[in-house]
Amino acid sequence: MKIVKIDMGNLSVNEEAESKYKRLGGRAITSKIIHDEVMATCHPLGAENKLIFATGLLTGSGASSADRYSVGAKSPLTGGIKESNAGGISGLMLGKLGIKALVFSNVREDFKIIHISKSGVKFVDATPILGKDLSVASNWLRDTYGKHVAVWLIGVAGEQKMNLAAIAGQDKDGDPTRFNGRGGLGAVAGSKGIKAIVLDASDVKKNRPSNKESFRKALKQYHSWLMETPGTAKILPELGTASLVETTNTLGALPTRNFSTGAIEGYKNITGETLRETIIERGGEGSTTHACMPGCIIRCSNVYADKSGKRITGPIEYENIGLLGSNLDITNLDEIAELNHLCNELGIDTIETGGALGVLMAQNVISFGDAKGAVSALKEIKNGTPLGRIIGSGAEVIGKLYGEPHVPTVKGQTMPAYDPRAVKGLGVTFATSPMGADHTAGQTVRAQINHHSPEGQVEVSKKAQTVNTIWDNLGMCMFSSGAVQNRWDILAELISAYTGEVYSGEDIVNTANETLKVEHAFNRRAGFTKAHDKLPDYFYVEENKASKTVFDVPQYEVDTIGVNRNDL
Amino acid sequence: MKIVKIDMGNLSVNEEAESKYKRLGGRAITSKIIHDEVMATCHPLGAENKLIFATGLLTGSGASSADRYSVGAKSPLTGGIKESNAGGISGLMLGKLGIKALVFSNVREDFKIIHISKSGVKFVDATPILGKDLSVASNWLRDTYGKHVAVWLIGVAGEQKMNLAAIAGQDKDGDPTRFNGRGGLGAVAGSKGIKAIVLDASDVKKNRPSNKESFRKALKQYHSWLMETPGTAKILPELGTASLVETTNTLGALPTRNFSTGAIEGYKNITGETLRETIIERGGEGSTTHACMPGCIIRCSNVYADKSGKRITGPIEYENIGLLGSNLDITNLDEIAELNHLCNELGIDTIETGGALGVLMAQNVISFGDAKGAVSALKEIKNGTPLGRIIGSGAEVIGKLYGEPHVPTVKGQTMPAYDPRAVKGLGVTFATSPMGADHTAGQTVRAQINHHSPEGQVEVSKKAQTVNTIWDNLGMCMFSSGAVQNRWDILAELISAYTGEVYSGEDIVNTANETLKVEHAFNRRAGFTKAHDKLPDYFYVEENKASKTVFDVPQYEVDTIGVNRNDL
Repeated sequence: MKIVKIDMGNLSVNEEAESKYKRLGGRAITSKIIHDEVMATCHPLGAENKLIFATGLLTGSGASSADRYSVGAKSPLTGGIKESNAGGISGLMLGKLGIKALVFSNVREDFKIIHISKSGVKFVDATPILGKDLSVASNWLRDTYGKHVAVWLIGVAGEQKMNLAAIAGQDKDGDPTRFNGRGGLGAVAGSKGIKAIVLDASDVKKNRPSNKESFRKALKQYHSWLMETPGTAKILPELGTASLVETTNTLGALPTRNFSTGAIEGYKNITGETLRETIIERGGEGSTTHACMPGCIIRCSNVYADKSGKRITGPIEYENIGLLGSNLDITNLDEIAELNHLCNELGIDTIETGGALGVLMAQNVISFGDAKGAVSALKEIKNGTPLGRIIGSGAEVIGKLYGEPHVPTVKGQTMPAYDPRAVKGLGVTFATSPMGADHTAGQTVRAQINHHSPEGQVEVSKKAQTVNTIWDNLGMCMFSSGAVQNRWDILAELISAYTGEVYSGEDIVNTANETLKVEHAFNRRAGFTKAHDKLPDYFYVEENKASKTVFDVPQYEVDTIGVNRNDL
Repeated sequence: MKIVKIDMGNLSVNEEAESKYKRLGGRAITSKIIHDEVMATCHPLGAENKLIFATGLLTGSGASSADRYSVGAKSPLTGGIKESNAGGISGLMLGKLGIKALVFSNVREDFKIIHISKSGVKFVDATPILGKDLSVASNWLRDTYGKHVAVWLIGVAGEQKMNLAAIAGQDKDGDPTRFNGRGGLGAVAGSKGIKAIVLDASDVKKNRPSNKESFRKALKQYHSWLMETPGTAKILPELGTASLVETTNTLGALPTRNFSTGAIEGYKNITGETLRETIIERGGEGSTTHACMPGCIIRCSNVYADKSGKRITGPIEYENIGLLGSNLDITNLDEIAELNHLCNELGIDTIETGGALGVLMAQNVISFGDAKGAVSALKEIKNGTPLGRIIGSGAEVIGKLYGEPHVPTVKGQTMPAYDPRAVKGLGVTFATSPMGADHTAGQTVRAQINHHSPEGQVEVSKKAQTVNTIWDNLGMCMFSSGAVQNRWDILAELISAYTGEVYSGEDIVNTANETLKVEHAFNRRAGFTKAHDKLPDYFYVEENKASKTVFDVPQYEVDTIGVNRNDL
């Protein structure tokens, strides 16, 4: 496979052999390139930053839940290194084209569509799709370039280089609903004039495993685990990630009214069960289960329809219910769906948007529970009005604008839907991950531990950070990790058989830890210290009334796995 | 003298002996208290931060230009330690009351007037003066408490905890025109519910020098230097700080159109000479020279009147001409005066405001040169509209909102009116001072050096940083430093004779360096590293067309006097 380097300043293209990235995939590649090639103190929206798309080691192999890809850059939201991955088919298509990583450098003022096919890279003026809703732009691209292409694109928020701008990829049905949401990577794309990337793998041969027999055997084992584990076999396919609402509300971890408490009165209206019942009852275009990637066994996604059965949005995820729902004192699925839909059309991260609206509600700029007010405010993003710009800057910046100390962010990034006082392992992850507050950087909510106790949380987070990094490197969905249960050897067999390179279970773990190491090293150069490895003050002193806890994991323990961790 | 500690949460007052602060003054005190008592990672607007007012060692002594006082806190603008000092009579009055430092802790929601007199501290509801123009609030205070009091107060920006909110003190004529402008200290006051401080020194005996004879002798020497040095004897009294416009425009250092170049076409309209001629020609309430502190020999201040001779504002300083004038493509003194006036009434830092408007103009939210647009935008600060909040957040945050990499800030604070590509010593100061971009932290523009050359600038800045810190500790105006010329022994004699403590010239220098040391130590704990000791990227790569230079002082040299400096 190859590395394709595109200078967006002069629109030149260079292809290189994968050489030193041969044994790496996904996040391991994006983070290594950023570490090696990006000046850590550079302005994230300036010419020195790079934006990298990389396929996972198993992307395209046909293994379930393994077609994810990573996007990386220095983040305008956190000021540190960032990787954000997503499913769907766009990463898969990049892999089919034989491209292991796509590296964009430099900046430009106007916007281009970058068309990549067997015959090379073409740059097309993006004017026809500027300022449009994401679905409109995506349809235009597929009408123009054919239904067989896969696309990545940014929305109006990315065009305006807003901190909460995402990059959207396409699911197997052609909908641009798979997001590299976190860290403002859409703004980095916007700064480089990348409106869309069209991937056309026509006349390209399918990738085949290097050792078919061995691959088939390992795959069988892996799939059987997925099919016999309750989470991946039943809970996620039936209820989706929304199955967590009941759990976190009970724990007192469901962010409520700008993370002021962890349980909400009307939570029954927004559980996974209610979501499922509502979708089934309404029928029509709705669906309780949906695979974003072809062949995915887990199929945790869904399509939410209105009362007449017409699709409003998809998927409604746990994080969206938490951030756009309870965090805003909204417990009505239709209202959450409308906000979710709007975020998708604007091309913005739902978590960061929920964080931003939460702080604005704490400041009474919009009232808690006022979904109409939230919708109307969000719409201002399109034209970049002052309020639109304010929302677009994310929760941390809004806190600075309004002098509000209650801002649920770490390293500038909004916490996903877990109050860290009630799921303390995630609190440790939020504090110490090189990514800022991010549950996918070290998810502990399913760990067998007393989530309210400070004990053992650092160890749990540390392990989870390694596991999540392994998954990010392989291009696998983190939801399969519960079924694999640290049995790395089967993963090693899968990769070895697929790529033809020999990997051991130990190699996989070591590469993940090496990835974390280069990420922390980059962040240190960018100016991060252990002073940044902490939660906002109020989590330590103001009790979460639902869980009756504060965050009390000792900082000296937290610091052992933060920016200065030396065990890697 | 004593230290008065006020907990704004429960409105309790504690008095302590000055003990370990006995030999310190001004910035040395504020920075030591912050270093010793404030958790470096705390939220600047939270209960953990402290706001400290401290008199200089010579404040109240009767020495010319020596009645300044320092205000310090962790800054909401920079996230680091901050000291900002000002002249006028409020610091003098604090000293008369026998108070060396006034230390505010905790936070509160409502606003108080804190009345301090011989009989103690009283807290009064501030509702009658909330939301008012600063001059209205100040007059109300003096009408209510008597013309003999001195006041400190914040404006509507401080009430709303905006990053560019200043604290205003009063000049010898009762006007609240002396500002602790930088670093958002007005927002810290706002977070603590401090609307105003009224200082009533009735029935308090005047401070007398401990050794009159020796003091008189040293004072005579010091004053004779002030009266025989051209800068302090002639240039500053005649032209004020605006005398610099001609110099910096010639150097290519006058910030123009959001620091994109360093000279402006119509600069002749905004020079110190033009300012003086205009004031003289108009007569009436205008004055070309004005002492902010009683007995000041330098009298660099002025009062600017309109065509009918009615006072518009005062003083118009060089920094205001640079930031509210050329930086916004405005070369009309009446327009600058109006903006200046508005900043004063809102209680905001003119430098940060000019930086904020400059970035908004670079983004075409307001057009360059559009003074009316700027005035109308500034007025939105009063009601905290989205645009008002945006301006109130300062240039750095606005850059994040609009995805603009051309933002002339260091550590979040707007550069004063010197393009660092053309006065490179100041570039070094901006990059390395614990205060962020601040000319008063190490002014080099009057140094005998080729300002365009990278050579020798680190040494010049290093010396200037020590000198400025000495002046800040003594409560002296930095404009006298050119006349004193490092002859520390006379300063030591002055302080020794005034305070009764024995100081050598070496002591003075050592204390200043110790102050810098604790400031850098605090900033390291707050998370600053050498990654923060740099200018924005574009100053290194985009040429200032007026000076034909980029900033090219080698970073390894710059780093020797930054956050990790080990020579202190």
